[in-house]
Amino acid sequence: MRTIYSPRHAGHAGNVELNSGAIVPAFELPRRAEIIRDRVREVGLGPIEAPREFDLSVAARVHDRGYLDFLPRAWPMWAAEGRGGTAMPFVFPVPGLRRDRPPEDIDGLLGFYAFDAGATFVEGTWDAVRASHDVALTGAALLAEGERAVFSLCRPPGHHAGSRFAGGYCFVNNAAVAAEYLRGRGHERVTVLDIDYHHGNGTQEIFYARGDVQVVNLHADPVREYPYFLGHADERGTGAGEGANLNLPLPWGTGIEPFMAALATGLAAIADFGPGALVVSLGVDTYREDPISRFQLDTPDYPGIGAAVAALGLPTLFVMEGGYAVEPIGANAVGVLTGFEEG
Amino acid sequence: MRTIYSPRHAGHAGNVELNSGAIVPAFELPRRAEIIRDRVREVGLGPIEAPREFDLSVAARVHDRGYLDFLPRAWPMWAAEGRGGTAMPFVFPVPGLRRDRPPEDIDGLLGFYAFDAGATFVEGTWDAVRASHDVALTGAALLAEGERAVFSLCRPPGHHAGSRFAGGYCFVNNAAVAAEYLRGRGHERVTVLDIDYHHGNGTQEIFYARGDVQVVNLHADPVREYPYFLGHADERGTGAGEGANLNLPLPWGTGIEPFMAALATGLAAIADFGPGALVVSLGVDTYREDPISRFQLDTPDYPGIGAAVAALGLPTLFVMEGGYAVEPIGANAVGVLTGFEEG
Ligand SMILES: [Zn+2]
Ligand SMILES: [Zn+2]
Repeated sequence: MRTIYSPRHAGHAGNVELNSGAIVPAFELPRRAEIIRDRVREVGLGPIEAPREFDLSVAARVHDRGYLDFLPRAWPMWAAEGRGGTAMPFVFPVPGLRRDRPPEDIDGLLGFYAFDAGATFVEGTWDAVRASHDVALTGAALLAEGERAVFSLCRPPGHHAGSRFAGGYCFVNNAAVAAEYLRGRGHERVTVLDIDYHHGNGTQEIFYARGDVQVVNLHADPVREYPYFLGHADERGTGAGEGANLNLPLPWGTGIEPFMAALATGLAAIADFGPGALVVSLGVDTYREDPISRFQLDTPDYPGIGAAVAALGLPTLFVMEGGYAVEPIGANAVGVLTGFEEG
Repeated sequence: MRTIYSPRHAGHAGNVELNSGAIVPAFELPRRAEIIRDRVREVGLGPIEAPREFDLSVAARVHDRGYLDFLPRAWPMWAAEGRGGTAMPFVFPVPGLRRDRPPEDIDGLLGFYAFDAGATFVEGTWDAVRASHDVALTGAALLAEGERAVFSLCRPPGHHAGSRFAGGYCFVNNAAVAAEYLRGRGHERVTVLDIDYHHGNGTQEIFYARGDVQVVNLHADPVREYPYFLGHADERGTGAGEGANLNLPLPWGTGIEPFMAALATGLAAIADFGPGALVVSLGVDTYREDPISRFQLDTPDYPGIGAAVAALGLPTLFVMEGGYAVEPIGANAVGVLTGFEEG
């Protein structure tokens, strides 16, 4: 399996986040991607290649134009006011407030295009986001050209980013962009399977009214877990997308057995949907020692997940999402991939 | 003019806020209310009295029940997890996410019921909010009993709090509760006039579809100023409230002349509406040295504002809102009141 990787992610570094009423260093660190890359090399998964360059035309089909225009401007606008540190929002357009008039002030814009204070900007953020987007699209292009499976080692991740909101370390929804690309390249139907610990609220929001892109999510029950405001079992899609969204929320403490049972349910729904290609939002914050999560999966459990996904027999793009137990992230993420290859 | 004041506001202290990507001590300090109280005494405005006690039945007519139930539980839930410091939200239910299923987790609930990270909880917060609510209602009751004018020295302030969101130092919308009380005590129509530097987005949201409570706001243009997502001139009310909302946004740098011109426009609209009573959301962050605001009003300007309001000839309740230049806040706020008395 080829791995697509760009070192440009490393410019998105040194940023902080708001956690439990305090500012702390972001859990989403450059070392995460580097450890996964090193593990890919160590186990000989396959070649590691640089991404091709893509314009934002596919991204513009899943994201709002004003949102995409703002992302590269966020840090320059912040810096132009003489501010350093990390650019983050603090006020948000919840229902009852307006969302049809973008403010002109940087604090207003940061909040206008976000649902939390967790997707924060430093000088290198946009370049890293742009490269992550290219990493995802290169994987999708390779799939369209006939590869059975590709690993897009994206950083920053993408699955919390919606059509017009950043959040949860995510800016451009890499998996959604890849799925949209594949949808436009001969596949009538495409599925995104999200196995990150957290619900992929951005991916769901983007495709919720569409019948051509199925979204299947396994995740911690939002009643008690971030992102809280999406990911319930009764969200089945709307309009043309009715029935094309499947949420499988699981309680805190979930171990590999109930996880695999839910995965089997998700895979059966995917087989029923009959997609021509599969995009897997691959998060390994399901790991039992993840510092911000509460599932109980262990390192030897991950290959079995990959093997189960392989049994679908679909062209499959793995897009890296979360996982914050930094040292084990390589073994866990690459474990899914080797399990897929052997499955 | 009687002043209603409770020392219980002082328990809401020591909290921090998120400002420009950093955690800083909240600008909304106990000393603000104490300096105003001292100034009331110094100029001999009238007696300073303790509030009566009220239940939350009037508040429940302007706020969502789940929201009111949550406010007293926020700090205990936070503390029950062994957390100290300041309780604040970090993730918010923007459009595209759900707002019909309250989470059970404290971080989820804090965000579910907020539009920013600026209304933060410490142990004494709810008791202070409860007392501030009583301070407002006591003023409204005195008005209903025949007083010409009363000053409710509320702290925390209220005008950013909506039917189901806290934010901007505000939890219960004191002015809205007072207006609702007066509306139920024989007045067919009541007006809230908000002269705080910031748009009173909570008050507008609460009464936006109602024709019996007019809301008139003078404030910094939300295109470049907090709260950003409400306060434009084209917001005129909806349904039965069509025409009963008036926003008069003003640019950064506004001094007393354009401020008084906008006030005259607002007062004319109030006279046209013909309310039986007036609630003034009194903020003095319009002051030229306010640390977080950008108008240019000076201390000698404030009595003229009070005099202009007095010319309406209405029973008038002043409810304290913002103002963060701590030392001058007494002279500025009480200047409006003495101007009213002499006007
Ligand atoms: Zn995650
Ligand atoms: Zn204010």
